[in-house]
Amino acid sequence: MFKKLLIANRGEIAVRIIRAARELGIATVAVYSEADKESLHTVLADEAICIGPAKSTDSYLNMNSVLSAAIVTGAEAIHPGFGFLSENSKFATMCEEMNIKFIGPSGQVMDKMGDKINARKEMIAANVPVIPGSAGEITSPEEALRVAQEVGYPVMLKASAGGGGKGIRKVKQEEDLVAAFESASQEALAAFGNGAMYIEKVIYPARHIEVQILGDSYGNIIHLGERDCSLQRNNQKVLEESPSIAIGQTLRRQMGDAAVRAAQAVAYENAGTIEFLLDESTGQFYFMEMNTRVQVEHPVTEFVTGIDIVKEQIKIAAGQALSLSQDEVTITGHAIECRINAENPAFNFAPSPGKITDLYLPSGGVGLRVDSAVYQGYTIPPYYDSMIAKIIVHGENRFDALMKMQRALYELEIEGVMTNSHFQLDLISDKRVIAGDYDTSFLMEAFLPAYHPGDE
Amino acid sequence: MFKKLLIANRGEIAVRIIRAARELGIATVAVYSEADKESLHTVLADEAICIGPAKSTDSYLNMNSVLSAAIVTGAEAIHPGFGFLSENSKFATMCEEMNIKFIGPSGQVMDKMGDKINARKEMIAANVPVIPGSAGEITSPEEALRVAQEVGYPVMLKASAGGGGKGIRKVKQEEDLVAAFESASQEALAAFGNGAMYIEKVIYPARHIEVQILGDSYGNIIHLGERDCSLQRNNQKVLEESPSIAIGQTLRRQMGDAAVRAAQAVAYENAGTIEFLLDESTGQFYFMEMNTRVQVEHPVTEFVTGIDIVKEQIKIAAGQALSLSQDEVTITGHAIECRINAENPAFNFAPSPGKITDLYLPSGGVGLRVDSAVYQGYTIPPYYDSMIAKIIVHGENRFDALMKMQRALYELEIEGVMTNSHFQLDLISDKRVIAGDYDTSFLMEAFLPAYHPGDE
Repeated sequence: MFKKLLIANRGEIAVRIIRAARELGIATVAVYSEADKESLHTVLADEAICIGPAKSTDSYLNMNSVLSAAIVTGAEAIHPGFGFLSENSKFATMCEEMNIKFIGPSGQVMDKMGDKINARKEMIAANVPVIPGSAGEITSPEEALRVAQEVGYPVMLKASAGGGGKGIRKVKQEEDLVAAFESASQEALAAFGNGAMYIEKVIYPARHIEVQILGDSYGNIIHLGERDCSLQRNNQKVLEESPSIAIGQTLRRQMGDAAVRAAQAVAYENAGTIEFLLDESTGQFYFMEMNTRVQVEHPVTEFVTGIDIVKEQIKIAAGQALSLSQDEVTITGHAIECRINAENPAFNFAPSPGKITDLYLPSGGVGLRVDSAVYQGYTIPPYYDSMIAKIIVHGENRFDALMKMQRALYELEIEGVMTNSHFQLDLISDKRVIAGDYDTSFLMEAFLPAYHPGDE
Repeated sequence: MFKKLLIANRGEIAVRIIRAARELGIATVAVYSEADKESLHTVLADEAICIGPAKSTDSYLNMNSVLSAAIVTGAEAIHPGFGFLSENSKFATMCEEMNIKFIGPSGQVMDKMGDKINARKEMIAANVPVIPGSAGEITSPEEALRVAQEVGYPVMLKASAGGGGKGIRKVKQEEDLVAAFESASQEALAAFGNGAMYIEKVIYPARHIEVQILGDSYGNIIHLGERDCSLQRNNQKVLEESPSIAIGQTLRRQMGDAAVRAAQAVAYENAGTIEFLLDESTGQFYFMEMNTRVQVEHPVTEFVTGIDIVKEQIKIAAGQALSLSQDEVTITGHAIECRINAENPAFNFAPSPGKITDLYLPSGGVGLRVDSAVYQGYTIPPYYDSMIAKIIVHGENRFDALMKMQRALYELEIEGVMTNSHFQLDLISDKRVIAGDYDTSFLMEAFLPAYHPGDE
């Protein structure tokens, strides 16, 4: 096992990793920006190294600074968390070259799955259903028109190197296609230095169902069941649950098997997630993309499986075999996660950084977990993601979990900044959410248009 | 199910019960003394009623005040927690007479088990091994001498109506017996109005192993495995774990079966605990007493079984059948609880009430739970028990649980009052505790004499 681990992240995920490492007896090194001197990850780690100014590109995204911190402190491994450098294949390769273990898949595997056109090809070869669309790169507006007609409108135009919503267009009808293709391709070229585009049919209505994967360095790959992350605002997940209420045992097995095939196709190592879109009316599911890192919503899977995914990541990276086989994975009860963001629902969820003057995090009882990086008196800096805590509950069944979440949100008290906690309480109190009757469009198209935060 | 529940307690157990009730959709009524206006249970409940001055006898022990609060608020049931009125058969009977459901066994059952001589007789009849000693009441010093010689010194002289350490004497040799008998009997008469005494052999060295019981109103009784509570200071438990490292599968089954027989013998309803002493050298175990209430250490059982004992208590009281059978009870992993007290280990653990100026409770990650009734800015009143929080961890195995507890205690920060958190960290870092090599005398006779809190 590693003796010392550097955590190349901040916020609750950095704290989460520090805790897992400490429980494994591994010394921890935090890196922090000048804005994060008082942050919990900086305080909790055994050592902390400042890696630059507040701006992410100057600190958490600065590969040389992060690597230097690892070398100076003698860290044998780097856990990238999510976001920042976690899916940066160049960084993973640099770590490898420096003989520092990057906790995640190799740079080559990341590249294979990061190139969306290539990922589609890999999946087709592995017999994993992909969204109907182009076989490969679309090089001309004419080809785009032909493929779009084949799969049927509406379609999504997507940049192969895409991410962060760049180089992506939804096209509802033929007459809009050519203009959209050209602008998206140019945008992609400008953003990623690569204008390659592909087309996918729009699956709608659909549920976002993702399958958690673990693979070790001996070729063992298992899945830990699915998460339903259909409640999204601007493509950002808001609330996640496991298992999904939308799928039965047969579909669950099929999706799990497909996810394992997807991971096997690229000889995947460490934790990853295969994201699918599910057409509930037909039961057909489609590969959307693979996230080659731990995800924000991993705790719901930890609750229903009892497996510590972050510890598994570290153990796998240290060369240990998976601690269990697929047959030994059991799903017990139901888990839900609500993301708590410092933001103002009444002003289009604008970030609300500032000092937390009063804080009470729910705790106690059976099946409640709060992953957070805040404390009373902490000042949330304005430079980073607004997510400050995750409340995760585990109940005997979905209703029990919803009741627990209500209780937890009722107790939660954060003063000094605005948060979405009342919004989350309203959301889980909505009849349709209680019934599990929602898809990826629900929040934006049904819930929010009728929502008045002032009513609280 | 009840619509409204009154919680006749304070501190973390009151908060624990409020949370469970809320998760079951039951409205909650807190009762509080004048010293507890700002206490968390008072704040968290849906309604709160002041029942008198700070002194327990004027408030939390004042049966008429508590009952009045229930009647005024229309509460259909009362949960007594532990301590205070929880084992007061008169109160249970008064509730019954007022048509308010007391969440616990009936007053008659409490009396049967509260009278220690009678409890011994019941157990012998139920084929549950008791500590060698007198068959019934000892009425004269001569009889005491005869029985003591029979069972062998050292012996314990105990008051049948005993509790709180009153009317109890350890006698090492024959020449001390008569004087001890007379003074203990007089003390018992003064304290309980009943001087009846009995004798038990001293089981030493021994482990304190207790078995959690659940019984419903349909005669179903199951056990939820054991807890090892051998780490005690002045007969107060300090750290508890489940399962016990001292017993194997055979003994576990025997003790579980004996506990179920014990509960069956008195047609026990609701949650209860059968406490045993185990002679590790022979594997022989002996009934010590039954606690007819939920216990401080119930969360360790909740972690390893996944069963919410407080919710089960409420459901049973509402007339529901047990939600599972004995065969469905499985023990997974290992759980440990550390009691965090506001006390000063450097001054013989003297209580340290006062204002909590700074507070960080450990949280997050897999298998950690903190049950507490404190918050930053809260003033711990000097009138009640010094326990302010319980840290409970659940690991894959005992070592993993110990590592988690270390991590949690490392994170814990309570400023403004003294606490035993460093003491707990030192205790679980002790080689003998790590090895599980301890008995009921370990803390007082081995650990504490060599302990220097100043060394921290």
